[in-house]
Amino acid sequence: MAARFDVVGIGNAIVDVLVHADEGFLERHGLVKGTMSLVDAASAEALYAAAGAGVEVSGGSAANTIAGLAALGGRTAFVGKVRNDQLGTVFGHDIRASGVHFATPPGDAGAATARCLVLVTPDAQRTMATYLGACVDLGPDDLDEDLVAASAVTYLEGYLWDPPGAKEAFRKAWRISHGNGHRVALSLSDPFCVDRHREEFLGLIAEHVDILFANEAEITSLYGVADFDAALQRVRGHCDIAALTRSEKGSVIVAGDEVHVVDAEPVADVVDTTGAGDLYAAGFLYGLSQGWDLARAARLGALAAAEVIGHLGARPQADLAALKAARFG
Amino acid sequence: MAARFDVVGIGNAIVDVLVHADEGFLERHGLVKGTMSLVDAASAEALYAAAGAGVEVSGGSAANTIAGLAALGGRTAFVGKVRNDQLGTVFGHDIRASGVHFATPPGDAGAATARCLVLVTPDAQRTMATYLGACVDLGPDDLDEDLVAASAVTYLEGYLWDPPGAKEAFRKAWRISHGNGHRVALSLSDPFCVDRHREEFLGLIAEHVDILFANEAEITSLYGVADFDAALQRVRGHCDIAALTRSEKGSVIVAGDEVHVVDAEPVADVVDTTGAGDLYAAGFLYGLSQGWDLARAARLGALAAAEVIGHLGARPQADLAALKAARFG
Repeated sequence: MAARFDVVGIGNAIVDVLVHADEGFLERHGLVKGTMSLVDAASAEALYAAAGAGVEVSGGSAANTIAGLAALGGRTAFVGKVRNDQLGTVFGHDIRASGVHFATPPGDAGAATARCLVLVTPDAQRTMATYLGACVDLGPDDLDEDLVAASAVTYLEGYLWDPPGAKEAFRKAWRISHGNGHRVALSLSDPFCVDRHREEFLGLIAEHVDILFANEAEITSLYGVADFDAALQRVRGHCDIAALTRSEKGSVIVAGDEVHVVDAEPVADVVDTTGAGDLYAAGFLYGLSQGWDLARAARLGALAAAEVIGHLGARPQADLAALKAARFG
Repeated sequence: MAARFDVVGIGNAIVDVLVHADEGFLERHGLVKGTMSLVDAASAEALYAAAGAGVEVSGGSAANTIAGLAALGGRTAFVGKVRNDQLGTVFGHDIRASGVHFATPPGDAGAATARCLVLVTPDAQRTMATYLGACVDLGPDDLDEDLVAASAVTYLEGYLWDPPGAKEAFRKAWRISHGNGHRVALSLSDPFCVDRHREEFLGLIAEHVDILFANEAEITSLYGVADFDAALQRVRGHCDIAALTRSEKGSVIVAGDEVHVVDAEPVADVVDTTGAGDLYAAGFLYGLSQGWDLARAARLGALAAAEVIGHLGARPQADLAALKAARFG
């Protein structure tokens, strides 16, 4: 089927609560800096009560990527589950207002819309505690077959392996996508998430993933190797394209015999690293959708990531399409 | 009664939805730049649907002032009505997390927690559309007599004249405050709000207000005069202290025969003027609570206002107490 969308993203539909916190707060609450922990409703409430005044802004890893792609000018859709509550309304409004097609019906019973407490420490690192809420209700029935069939790339976040029902939606997604001659991309999301699902991810990448996104911690965790170079050798041949991000060291793209090392975009003032990987993926996938070569796509990924870490929150605030046009024409 | 709180604020308990918008958006929706319009639930929904992706952050004029006072180190309390819904939880969390005593019981029926769509235009001006929601349910029963009796200043926002029940709470508040030898402060809030309630405000200021806050548009509207100097002559003697703000022209304090002209604090990059007046009042009231002279209190007001217009949102993000200590010791 001809592609009506460049990318459809499937992920947890989450509203972020951004709070400044010090290292002591992370320690007292047993949180590991730079990672995402899953918490139940009671823990989420206790953490929130202990945290400072917050700012609510739509988040979710794949949703951030899709919003970034839309901001760059990509044709995008998103699939994810909210409840029909106030935060669910916020999530739906924001992703549609970004120009993304979003039609997953909200749940009218069960858990509330998912929230992620994003604790931003003075070093601009973010540590996340996620209450999955309504995301656990995402299932294969929420996946519109025509939508996936009409998308050149189906983008999946590793986090979606955590709620049990979503896996079935994933399996359905890659069957439809590949059945229509399209590509499947996966982001590994988080080193702890890789720990939880390593064996499944290894099999999945070998059989179903065409484009893999991972940072250094995630890719070394996936292969259980000590350093990045060892991981690089393993990922070559494991999937068609791997885009591996290394924070201020830039990124490395591996595709068969091709290897491209691309610099990070300089950022004057790193405020909050939330969404860096998500927006890198947005820029990279936008480049691929335009038929750009891998290195150029990676440079756009670096540009989009630099914008998002310059402010609080994981969705772009600047005009990404204008930034792109200024740099790439 | 000896004061346990420096200031108790009574106001509309609102969550702001901050959205970037262009002048065309304001025109298409009949909104007047720089002012606050009241909208019903249906209009609020239609405006929100048309607006871009937003950021949710606790607001409310008096609530912003009280949060700013707490950030400066003041002992503060707030009275305002939310619903027991998700945004009501956000409002309550944020104000308590700022160090403010907040114990008004949330409504468990009726309208949802109030929302204000704050449209920030490229010139950093803000235009607001407020759905009052649960605020209309604030009444005298929500006002804890002991709390007002224990507060050196009771601070009221003019906006609270809009929901009908709140007026009774106001009357109760100034009776208790004055009955305990304490002071009453009022912010005029908005020129349209002054238009709606001019006669009542004029009587109220003469009889019950010790400290008045207004900007140039509000004070000229109040007296129906053409220019600021004419308003200055009228306000002298109308209440003990008037603190009149004039954006980048600074502020003028009038108290009987005393007149102080105080410069605005320079701001490198004005991002969003939302909360400028609210934070000015916070700094000024903090100074008074410490027995500072009027000019020094006004300079702290200018400093607090400068912080809040340097970023998106109407609550302080920097450490105001540290900024104060650096400047005033």
